Amino acid sequence: MAARPDVAVDFIELGKEDSMSLLVTGSIGIDTVSSPHGRAENVLGGSAVYFSFAASQYVPVRLVGVVGDDFPAKFKEVLQSRRIDLEGLEQRQGSRTFRWMGRFEGDMSEAETVEVELNVLAERGPKIPAAFEDSETVFLANTHPTLQRELLAQIRSPKLVVCDTMNLWIETERDSLVETLGQVTGVIINDAESRQLTGRTNLIDAGEAILAMGPKFVIIKKGEHGALLITAEGPFAIPAWPTKLVRDPTGAGDSFAGGTLGYLSERGGVTPETLRSALIRGTIAASFAIEDFSLRRVQDLQRQEIDARVSQFIEMLRVE
Amino acid sequence: MAARPDVAVDFIELGKEDSMSLLVTGSIGIDTVSSPHGRAENVLGGSAVYFSFAASQYVPVRLVGVVGDDFPAKFKEVLQSRRIDLEGLEQRQGSRTFRWMGRFEGDMSEAETVEVELNVLAERGPKIPAAFEDSETVFLANTHPTLQRELLAQIRSPKLVVCDTMNLWIETERDSLVETLGQVTGVIINDAESRQLTGRTNLIDAGEAILAMGPKFVIIKKGEHGALLITAEGPFAIPAWPTKLVRDPTGAGDSFAGGTLGYLSERGGVTPETLRSALIRGTIAASFAIEDFSLRRVQDLQRQEIDARVSQFIEMLRVE
Repeated sequence: MAARPDVAVDFIELGKEDSMSLLVTGSIGIDTVSSPHGRAENVLGGSAVYFSFAASQYVPVRLVGVVGDDFPAKFKEVLQSRRIDLEGLEQRQGSRTFRWMGRFEGDMSEAETVEVELNVLAERGPKIPAAFEDSETVFLANTHPTLQRELLAQIRSPKLVVCDTMNLWIETERDSLVETLGQVTGVIINDAESRQLTGRTNLIDAGEAILAMGPKFVIIKKGEHGALLITAEGPFAIPAWPTKLVRDPTGAGDSFAGGTLGYLSERGGVTPETLRSALIRGTIAASFAIEDFSLRRVQDLQRQEIDARVSQFIEMLRVE
Repeated sequence: MAARPDVAVDFIELGKEDSMSLLVTGSIGIDTVSSPHGRAENVLGGSAVYFSFAASQYVPVRLVGVVGDDFPAKFKEVLQSRRIDLEGLEQRQGSRTFRWMGRFEGDMSEAETVEVELNVLAERGPKIPAAFEDSETVFLANTHPTLQRELLAQIRSPKLVVCDTMNLWIETERDSLVETLGQVTGVIINDAESRQLTGRTNLIDAGEAILAMGPKFVIIKKGEHGALLITAEGPFAIPAWPTKLVRDPTGAGDSFAGGTLGYLSERGGVTPETLRSALIRGTIAASFAIEDFSLRRVQDLQRQEIDARVSQFIEMLRVE
């Protein structure tokens, strides 16, 4: 079992450009989503997919997950159009791909799950390919916390390990989740989950209570209200990118994580400063993902569009 | 009736230091508040009071309001300990002061009104003293929108007029409120009110819909999630000061308004840049007010404590 790297937040040094490696494990799904702005049927989705698109703007991404034999070839092509290595994508014969049907209404701050078919996600988990065992940065997207640890145990010596989770595991698999939290460097979680996990209402209190479980940093996502970063150095807050263009918030959180960890991997290290800068990139990654259904807005997104919005955001925050 | 100054946001020039003048009208009350952190009985409160303490850190404040003969002399002394001119404070014989009893629970994001006695606020409104008729900046704290206009009409040539309102008036006095909005330069309102007033769920949409009613700028307060500024130049977002120290959120919004308008008055003009800087000062004013019950934290607050936190906040927002 991989031990949590016992270094302070300000001393994590990732590999140089030629050895830098970012791995993500999580869901790869077929989504059907409706919002006040329309509906998209049987489109590409899943936490690992949104993460990969956002992160691959900064560094190559190693995607690990399982789909069924119904997974459309054209979805693979979309993934391959980016720097996303699919060696860890297992297409399991006789199984069906994870499917999620969701709806956003009103202020679209929360997805309502209309129907979910776990399918292949209810079977055995994926295997980390030998070629990926040397990955330095690992994002464990939301899944059963025991599976998160099993996956992490297959990585030889990760330097930066970040996980997400969800209300279901906080409620039903708390002990296992706490064990996982003891093995990660950082957590990216939403506000409701952080409160549920800790029983604290103030989000900084909640973040500090999670820090006490092991992680060196906790990032609390607040959707349209931005994000909080909690480290031993104290809290840091940023707003979301102010926008009216929100068609489909699906994948916003995973895009945020992808932009954040992709940027940290590109920078080659985690310090209080790079973490703050990374949150800006996560925020902007999410701001693009929500502009259209599925991966439509981000699949052909150019790095210069991202950098331009990042600059605008940094400029907005520069107040005297 | 005073007409709304017909100038763009970036051309409002306030008076020089010696003629600069900021007037506030609103409630002056006796509060009893409980929160998970304690309880304070029969303490000084009211929108105009919180506003005045925050604004008087920047410029002298002219307070206009009515209290009853039960208003404690010691409350007046607390007000007089700051640069708050009480010539417009009418102590009406035979009347009772406005009283509010409220409770904050859970995440303390909303006050629950346990009991309210309008008392003198249900009688005729205050009169603007002749010496205050030359006021340049006017804050019309939440009250009946018709009374807001009556008060404004007594000011000879205001240059910057900002109002607040509440759900009650949006529901019951919509036409009158819209008329008031047509006479102000800016609005400071909370997120729920902006949605209720406009029927828009996206806050930038809501802000723009309010702009279309007349104001040159709209500031939407989001409590622990910060604030949004909407002008013709586009949206600007800032987070709240990240803090665990929240004992009593009463007056946070009015303190925010006080810091914002006090700063603008000190700066002597309203431009997109000074507005953004002003929001920082509003945020920090609120961050102090909520640290203790009633005015306890702010009544002896020194300008240098404020400036230090402002600098820290600006530094926090300075990310690469």
